[in-house]
Amino acid sequence: MKSDKIILVTNDDGISAKGILFLSKLASEFGEVWVVAPDRPRSGSGHAITLCDPLRTERTHFHQIENEYTCSGTPADCVKLAVNKYLPRKPDLLLSGVNHGHNLSINVLYSGTMSAVLEGALSKIPSIGFSFFDHNSNADFSPCTEIISSILSSVLDFSGEHPLCLNVNIPKVQPGRIPKLKVCRAARGNWIEEFDGRNDPSGKPYYWLAGNFVNFEEGNSETDLYHFERGFATIVPIDYDLTDHAKLNDVKNLFP
Amino acid sequence: MKSDKIILVTNDDGISAKGILFLSKLASEFGEVWVVAPDRPRSGSGHAITLCDPLRTERTHFHQIENEYTCSGTPADCVKLAVNKYLPRKPDLLLSGVNHGHNLSINVLYSGTMSAVLEGALSKIPSIGFSFFDHNSNADFSPCTEIISSILSSVLDFSGEHPLCLNVNIPKVQPGRIPKLKVCRAARGNWIEEFDGRNDPSGKPYYWLAGNFVNFEEGNSETDLYHFERGFATIVPIDYDLTDHAKLNDVKNLFP
Repeated sequence: MKSDKIILVTNDDGISAKGILFLSKLASEFGEVWVVAPDRPRSGSGHAITLCDPLRTERTHFHQIENEYTCSGTPADCVKLAVNKYLPRKPDLLLSGVNHGHNLSINVLYSGTMSAVLEGALSKIPSIGFSFFDHNSNADFSPCTEIISSILSSVLDFSGEHPLCLNVNIPKVQPGRIPKLKVCRAARGNWIEEFDGRNDPSGKPYYWLAGNFVNFEEGNSETDLYHFERGFATIVPIDYDLTDHAKLNDVKNLFP
Repeated sequence: MKSDKIILVTNDDGISAKGILFLSKLASEFGEVWVVAPDRPRSGSGHAITLCDPLRTERTHFHQIENEYTCSGTPADCVKLAVNKYLPRKPDLLLSGVNHGHNLSINVLYSGTMSAVLEGALSKIPSIGFSFFDHNSNADFSPCTEIISSILSSVLDFSGEHPLCLNVNIPKVQPGRIPKLKVCRAARGNWIEEFDGRNDPSGKPYYWLAGNFVNFEEGNSETDLYHFERGFATIVPIDYDLTDHAKLNDVKNLFP
């Protein structure tokens, strides 16, 4: 099955995460894999890029992959650096993950995993983010194998006018079960924050960001949260355009 | 004109930037202003939130505003902290900026200024980001006064079902001129990166992220870049939904 495809793999959990090793190995059955990943965990880094500090990058051998590099920046930095500095040409596919934990609903916005995917989409590279609902650093990713392989095959064969950009979330299931796929849209929701306030040894306060997620569309079968909660692996097509096209006319009327 | 409105002001250039002082003063004509801003410049922080480190926050007096706080986190953290910890109630309006430099086209995705605005939108708060095309830290913001005042009036009076979320970019103009407003959508484009590689005193390499922006829609009069380049102040309605609704059916066909 090995081909002349070039596949860039990155993540936001950092080079040492088990999820990126799993994804790289799987991807290597479909082409030549290049790993360029953050040198440390960068969860929640959204679409941050590093403007105020210089970037460091190094060749590494964590996973014994031939083309393996770390970068001191964010996932979006990793993609920029890989495409512009390391890869011999624009990759045929960009993969991000497998994330330890899901990236459903509006969490795409906060997710470093998905910012790498959006960065790929901006450069017109077919790009897929994979997230598995198991935060354990030693998670067993085997329930993901068949799903990811089948999606990689389909996306590499896809010949549409515009490259695909997908957010794939895989639930944790009983061993031996393989979740079915469901294509849907992201649910609307939000985090209700509860800052966990503590005092440091010198008595000065600090806060941990914490909170509970609220699904604004409970019970809506068009959404990713609905299907994910019912054991499906969800696929949401993603776009980087943040214009609210539906409101353009209202706003034009307000500022004629 | 002073009212009982509560207005939250933040930015990504940090508490000491001239742009946030200008915006806070202007906003204070419309209501009670609360400033909660990053304690240092956080440009390019996208929609990052701080998960791996605790947040520090302090009352400050940079701008001699009664309710003025800094936060060690990102603009999105500032909004979460303000809404959940400092403000007496959900604000009537969230303002971010005035950013030193524009946030047109896909730069919304990278912009800390606009991530604060999206964070407001997620909490259903009317939210506006203002950016002025002058990177000078001592920029003269006076060409922005009339535009910003007029937009604040309109948005505070707006009674639509869904709160407005706007990205406003103001060009640098000759003194005395006031740019006209144009409501439009964000242009599609991307940065073509050129990493500026250097060696540190010990000979180890490092890189600065640099590049040139390419407008994929040159000459398209529906877009913000088109009008901004022609001297208009642009208003783009923004949404946080990253689902590519136009591609849902294609992807459903691919994964039936």
